[in-house]
Amino acid sequence: MRILIVFQSDYGHTKSMAESIAAGAKAVAPESEIVLQIAEQTSNEDLEHADVLFFGTPVHMGSMAWSMKKLVDQGAKLWMENRLEGKVGGVFVTGGGFGDAGGGVETTMIGLHANFLEHGMMVVGFPKSLPGYADGGLQWGAYARCATHEGMPKELSATQQVGARSYGAHVVEVAQKLFA
Amino acid sequence: MRILIVFQSDYGHTKSMAESIAAGAKAVAPESEIVLQIAEQTSNEDLEHADVLFFGTPVHMGSMAWSMKKLVDQGAKLWMENRLEGKVGGVFVTGGGFGDAGGGVETTMIGLHANFLEHGMMVVGFPKSLPGYADGGLQWGAYARCATHEGMPKELSATQQVGARSYGAHVVEVAQKLFA
Amino acid sequence: MRILIVFQSDYGHTKSMAESIAAGAKAVAPESEIVLQIAEQTSNEDLEHADVLFFGTPVHMGSMAWSMKKLVDQGAKLWMENRLEGKVGGVFVTGGGFGDAGGGVETTMIGLHANFLEHGMMVVGFPKSLPGYADGGLQWGAYARCATHEGMPKELSATQQVGARSYGAHVVEVAQKLFA
Amino acid sequence: MRILIVFQSDYGHTKSMAESIAAGAKAVAPESEIVLQIAEQTSNEDLEHADVLFFGTPVHMGSMAWSMKKLVDQGAKLWMENRLEGKVGGVFVTGGGFGDAGGGVETTMIGLHANFLEHGMMVVGFPKSLPGYADGGLQWGAYARCATHEGMPKELSATQQVGARSYGAHVVEVAQKLFA
Repeated sequence: MRILIVFQSDYGHTKSMAESIAAGAKAVAPESEIVLQIAEQTSNEDLEHADVLFFGTPVHMGSMAWSMKKLVDQGAKLWMENRLEGKVGGVFVTGGGFGDAGGGVETTMIGLHANFLEHGMMVVGFPKSLPGYADGGLQWGAYARCATHEGMPKELSATQQVGARSYGAHVVEVAQKLFA
Repeated sequence: MRILIVFQSDYGHTKSMAESIAAGAKAVAPESEIVLQIAEQTSNEDLEHADVLFFGTPVHMGSMAWSMKKLVDQGAKLWMENRLEGKVGGVFVTGGGFGDAGGGVETTMIGLHANFLEHGMMVVGFPKSLPGYADGGLQWGAYARCATHEGMPKELSATQQVGARSYGAHVVEVAQKLFA
Repeated sequence: MRILIVFQSDYGHTKSMAESIAAGAKAVAPESEIVLQIAEQTSNEDLEHADVLFFGTPVHMGSMAWSMKKLVDQGAKLWMENRLEGKVGGVFVTGGGFGDAGGGVETTMIGLHANFLEHGMMVVGFPKSLPGYADGGLQWGAYARCATHEGMPKELSATQQVGARSYGAHVVEVAQKLFA
Repeated sequence: MRILIVFQSDYGHTKSMAESIAAGAKAVAPESEIVLQIAEQTSNEDLEHADVLFFGTPVHMGSMAWSMKKLVDQGAKLWMENRLEGKVGGVFVTGGGFGDAGGGVETTMIGLHANFLEHGMMVVGFPKSLPGYADGGLQWGAYARCATHEGMPKELSATQQVGARSYGAHVVEVAQKLFA
């Protein structure tokens, strides 16, 4: 199986989540090809080559970072020919999160899902029974709030990393069933 | 496989879609148990008994009809114990649709997806390569606008029914892979 | 000015927010009529009678509680005749919030906004410069997470109440400008 | 009053809507400064200089075009200092729209609203009693579907232009009340 994890990272938080997701994926599919890559270096060929796509982004003003959005828009050519149809997708998001819940994480995740669904992909959410959900999950995917109450950046916690890892493993397990 | 199609219908449009979805499901899984049922007669046991759940609703003021919402809220007990986790879900929506796109169908579908994902279910969208998408689809599921330009009710068209049928078949095919 | 605050409350959290919003409204418009009322006791005449409407709900499985949804659906008759057009609306939400951000608060608030906008109302959000935003706000309105990390109910904090109060005052101040 | 209309346009449809919105704005505020500008040429100073902001975009894969998103992200600096708070915002969207309702217009509009609300701005929707709503409106703003059933580009209709014009006028009228 070929797994591509594409992300945009500001302070390294989203990259750190990407690595935890990769670790989870590797644990359940040790011989799979796993590639981590930033959005700006990702081509449509890269997307098409993969069986499983993870898209990760910080929340920027209520939705995905513009460099992720540029990648999404570039995918319109693949959409026209249904080139990503049937692939499996997962999403992960980090957020500075000012306000009681960190504004914009849901709209960001829903936007990423909408894009995968538009391609005819299978989108996999994050079941709350998995390890790390309470700290690193939302129903749509992995989420880690990376800011203090005052909005200052802070590192991902160990339990947030557990969430990202178990989500990465789960998405790949679903893909294994679908591609069996 | 046990397939439960739950809906709320005002003028019979959503019921009509439910029947097309059932026909599509039956075509790919002839020996499966297929039950159509309105929301108010649906118990948590019914939800738990099924392997595949379709939820259908008209758009009412921008989201699902309140009787569907009541069913969704009632499911909170199942959610606490992860009783629907791993089941497969699909959604279908009809809309009177005043305004250039019929306001509220996306928020309605996204709301239904959010609920299925919260239960840890696998949500299946509608790939645009399937028959009937242009008339009866959106990336999140089956959709049929059932109103004239002036907002008066009108019947589902034959091509909208084709869309619902091919979506029903597709969701069940995905479930067959996941439950194999 | 006539201010109607309609809510559904499970454990008293949303009712408590409603009271803080009322206090904020009263502070800036002392002679206004302020009514607090649960959804099930609210008629279309009540909605039409008011100049400013606040709708408040707990998050139930990713969107507003069904009794609020029933009130929203009942409003379809007013919508047909544009009877709420031009009124001012604000929203407030409480959430048990399992998962890193409390899943569903954004979809709940966006759903309430969508309904107000459909009526042609003016929707007022919560500017982050106001007191209490960091604890009791999101861009769409007042929000208070009322659960511990384990998902057990807990009281609204004093700073969450400050947020609800300053939001209530802000919405009424905007209404005063619009109705001057 | 200073009115800034920022947009991204692919085939000229969104630009055409921008011009209708400008015409509507001019009709109700003849002495106002009205500037039309593409996203890439828009600075934070431009945003701060305006009293009323219109953001317009085609739907690209379910949300705003990336050049608009880049502008939105660039606005984070203004957000930190609440520099756009209290300004009035309106949104307009064009969509190729494959599928029965044109997928993605609602998520696009909700995304633009979320951004304006995050800045503490007043967002103005499109009341359905205004001229042109049935062809060029949705509750969140002006919308014109610019594609045939097969997804090929087509010109904005005269009634879609009427919708954009009446929306532009309405937003400015609301601003006049708020800034009086």
